[in-house]
Amino acid sequence: MAENKFTVVGGGPVGSLLAISLARHGYKVGLFEGRPDSRQTSIYQGKSINIAMSDRGWTSLEKVGISSDAKKQAIPMVERAIHGAAGEISSLPYGKDGDAIWSVSRGGINEQLLNIADDEANITTHFNHRLIDIDFESAGTTFSVENSGQKIVEADFVFGADGARSKVRRLAHDFPRFSYSQTYMPQCYIELNIPANPDGSHKLPMNALHIWPRKDFMLIALPNTDGTFTCTLFMNHSGNPSFEALQERSEVEAFFESNFADASELLEDPVDVFLQKTAAPLFLVHVFPWSFNRKVGLIGDAAHAIVPFYGQGMNCGFEDCAELDSLIGSYDKDWNQIFPAYEKARKPNADAIAELSKRNFVEMSDLSGDLRFQVRKKIEAKFSDAFPTLWQPLYSMVTFSPDVPYSEALRIGDEQNNVMEKIMRLPNIVDDWDSQHVMDQLHGLASETFGEKQ
Amino acid sequence: MAENKFTVVGGGPVGSLLAISLARHGYKVGLFEGRPDSRQTSIYQGKSINIAMSDRGWTSLEKVGISSDAKKQAIPMVERAIHGAAGEISSLPYGKDGDAIWSVSRGGINEQLLNIADDEANITTHFNHRLIDIDFESAGTTFSVENSGQKIVEADFVFGADGARSKVRRLAHDFPRFSYSQTYMPQCYIELNIPANPDGSHKLPMNALHIWPRKDFMLIALPNTDGTFTCTLFMNHSGNPSFEALQERSEVEAFFESNFADASELLEDPVDVFLQKTAAPLFLVHVFPWSFNRKVGLIGDAAHAIVPFYGQGMNCGFEDCAELDSLIGSYDKDWNQIFPAYEKARKPNADAIAELSKRNFVEMSDLSGDLRFQVRKKIEAKFSDAFPTLWQPLYSMVTFSPDVPYSEALRIGDEQNNVMEKIMRLPNIVDDWDSQHVMDQLHGLASETFGEKQ
Repeated sequence: MAENKFTVVGGGPVGSLLAISLARHGYKVGLFEGRPDSRQTSIYQGKSINIAMSDRGWTSLEKVGISSDAKKQAIPMVERAIHGAAGEISSLPYGKDGDAIWSVSRGGINEQLLNIADDEANITTHFNHRLIDIDFESAGTTFSVENSGQKIVEADFVFGADGARSKVRRLAHDFPRFSYSQTYMPQCYIELNIPANPDGSHKLPMNALHIWPRKDFMLIALPNTDGTFTCTLFMNHSGNPSFEALQERSEVEAFFESNFADASELLEDPVDVFLQKTAAPLFLVHVFPWSFNRKVGLIGDAAHAIVPFYGQGMNCGFEDCAELDSLIGSYDKDWNQIFPAYEKARKPNADAIAELSKRNFVEMSDLSGDLRFQVRKKIEAKFSDAFPTLWQPLYSMVTFSPDVPYSEALRIGDEQNNVMEKIMRLPNIVDDWDSQHVMDQLHGLASETFGEKQ
Repeated sequence: MAENKFTVVGGGPVGSLLAISLARHGYKVGLFEGRPDSRQTSIYQGKSINIAMSDRGWTSLEKVGISSDAKKQAIPMVERAIHGAAGEISSLPYGKDGDAIWSVSRGGINEQLLNIADDEANITTHFNHRLIDIDFESAGTTFSVENSGQKIVEADFVFGADGARSKVRRLAHDFPRFSYSQTYMPQCYIELNIPANPDGSHKLPMNALHIWPRKDFMLIALPNTDGTFTCTLFMNHSGNPSFEALQERSEVEAFFESNFADASELLEDPVDVFLQKTAAPLFLVHVFPWSFNRKVGLIGDAAHAIVPFYGQGMNCGFEDCAELDSLIGSYDKDWNQIFPAYEKARKPNADAIAELSKRNFVEMSDLSGDLRFQVRKKIEAKFSDAFPTLWQPLYSMVTFSPDVPYSEALRIGDEQNNVMEKIMRLPNIVDDWDSQHVMDQLHGLASETFGEKQ
């Protein structure tokens, strides 16, 4: 093999998984991370510490040949626990029996993958290496190494797995015909914490993703194995209410009291944290192409930063790795074919999950607290149980069906939406949703729409 | 006045006009251009040498207090001259009697504005100064000066008028919550030349914009005062046909012969030029905000690079200047109010002309050669003559009606489109377009749609 050396920029979960995949195909891989090694230095203060993994993520790990221990340390969340304004809680299952999304520690899964990478003879790992420049012709890279100046690294190929604010992508801005967009959402977020009970147990039911939907803003909570919950408050950057508008302690206290009375009793110093922290922005990145000169590629958030409202960011990045892994086989290591096939296969799916994730803010913050929305979900669940080949709810396709590409899920979901809008216009639908009549109507419309296709 | 010093980056037409406007409001302006002074050094070889100016451009110059001599040296183009595949030519007027778009020399109008700037005591002009960095807090800028190192320039405010590939905008990429996109069109272009006759006259009728519409590609020609035409060939970057695909001399010869037989006889070495030149890309830039810390602003192509298919690029940039000029008065030089008011007023209009310009490729390259399209234009022209307050064709609103904002033109144009689609479905419309019946039908639909509004 003439060309056999890869530089992978970014030692997060996607970069680590990519490095392992490449190494197992026989390539020499240099894995470079700008930050210190989290296994030796705690670097996670104030950062998002848990993420939702679902079937796409687990399946992708398996496809690359990794049977992860992470699932054993993850907490399955089988339902949304929706906290109303008066403190009442309603439940909405995510899928069928056994379906769950998994709250996992981002740092934990990262470290597990780094440990596997360390066991691969073909991988050398370098922390405290910050990318400065790339030669897109030669695939040479320049890194700034902490306390020891600059280092030039030669390779045959480079992958940027360096996240939503990718430096590899930024350097590609001057590449001919490179289209890119970075779009800020109106919302920002801060993280809050619910501590464990003295005995280490959770203060809220642990097998749920807790949501306090308040239309223009919301609070969510994901369980951690140590009994705590990591909470995130999403709210507009400016306007009313917003992070910008809420500056006075008395106003912030009133805000928590009137909107999150039940959570306020559990949260650790929410008002102090709110006043001290700067809300972090949320943004989407779309770029194309994802490869340059068939030498340099982008993967994961570096290629397609999305918003967290579908819990699919890392799942999508792991799928990128699985797709690439499979294409390396299909095209017999011919990167002149692999790069274009990879971006062609993944770009429509990344665009689809970006769109779905953006839409899901409304679903989580507004609709999940809405009675008609809950009725609609129940009708879909019941119908899907009866006719599983005719109807799989959009959330299930995205979350529990790795065989359905995101782009297909988006397309089918839009058609389902048209059907369900008709169903929800039936008289007395909120009261009669469980009737045979509604099932018959839905079966007629669904057969008409999907009978030939699915 | 405490804050009185501006740095304007970019000495093109928009930067020069902005500098004059600011100077006349009493500000000290440093106008910095990376290239040499075109009045002393020829820098225009191979660059687009003429552009279409229309009423928005002229009106904006007047609003800023400049009565331009440029119109005297411009060539009015009153119609499209459409060259069919067999060499037949049909005409389609741009508007009513007296309406014209003007072919002007970009270099000429730039130099005229620089001459006016030189006469302003408040303006100092600096060529060969390339922007390197901006301090978005202090409005200090760093320039690389040819043959003499770096220079730091202090000011109270900075404007980036540095064009489609703006360095000011690029430096703003790291500004918090800055959304941006750069999108490449499938088309690229090369410029060709039709020389003058030996007696200095034009080889084609001079008061027209000549178009050879060939659906996926097209050639256009704009007249110059020296008897030449500047021609532009627009074609896809890749695919078939494309600049990428046409590499062999014999293929290029056959391409010109079969598609542009009549033009080929007039063009100067089109095959050689085609084979020698690298096709230039076309791209759109959308960003927001257009101002940072109420210290640094963007204007013209730097804020909103568009494609040239509506001939509105410089017109839109000049309108930015006129809007700003007016806001400086309205808000009594309070830039805390001027910056937000400016971007709020101009952003929707820039977005609208970007969209209209993108759509106009199809209109020019495909529809202008289409009989039904020409019939539709004739119906609209006739109806607009009869009921000018009820109907002004979209092209006229954009090009000849500076009082109609671009965003309004886009909105009204879309409604007109719905009406005209119904009209074009009338039986025998191509033969009967000139009938009273068609006018009556259109009057009914137009009154229904616009009667209350316009």
